[in-house]
Amino acid sequence: MAVTLHVCITCKAGQTIPEGEPTPGKRLHQAIADIGAPEGVTIVPVECLSACNNGSSVALSAPGRWCYVYGRMSEANAQDILAGAAAYAAAPDGLVPWRARPEIFRRQSLARIPPMFSLPEAAE
Amino acid sequence: MAVTLHVCITCKAGQTIPEGEPTPGKRLHQAIADIGAPEGVTIVPVECLSACNNGSSVALSAPGRWCYVYGRMSEANAQDILAGAAAYAAAPDGLVPWRARPEIFRRQSLARIPPMFSLPEAAE
Repeated sequence: MAVTLHVCITCKAGQTIPEGEPTPGKRLHQAIADIGAPEGVTIVPVECLSACNNGSSVALSAPGRWCYVYGRMSEANAQDILAGAAAYAAAPDGLVPWRARPEIFRRQSLARIPPMFSLPEAAE
Repeated sequence: MAVTLHVCITCKAGQTIPEGEPTPGKRLHQAIADIGAPEGVTIVPVECLSACNNGSSVALSAPGRWCYVYGRMSEANAQDILAGAAAYAAAPDGLVPWRARPEIFRRQSLARIPPMFSLPEAAE
């Protein structure tokens, strides 16, 4: 299952960032990329997830699955974010049992969006 | 373009709801359903969009488009929500110009999630 972990790299997380300094979002993306993607997960930097009041933010998505957005993340959470992404990728339907989710995912959900079932049908 | 407007019907919006009373989310869904869906939009009630701290919430999604989640909505916003959904449905790529979005969409975005491009390919 091709799962995408989106990481907002433009997020300032409510801070004033001096010119030329990396944003908190960029630092989060770097920390996640440094550890590396677990099997079945692609790490994708994104310019703004529109969760600016709750940054830094990340999102998990895959075709036919619920999508999840999590907020108030920092570099310190990189390992947990990747553990949560791995669990999402490993669950056949993306629905990870509540207790198997990292605590930051249980506590810092911003939103989830139902799967889209109206995917283009393959010709027979 | 098949656009879905998801409305969270379980949301209590931080209130204590007496047994048997409709939740704020259910009232929001009813208000939206009473007005009716604009062309190209399907209204779908959902049990929890995991945006409980910012309820009531709604989400817009369609295959191949950015998905959007908006929070702190009430029945008073039903007309604006449907206007925003209609604009999203009418925009070829779902990207509605900033000024053409209802003010509640500009101010109360909870998150957006990039489109998924790894849709199943039709057999040739």
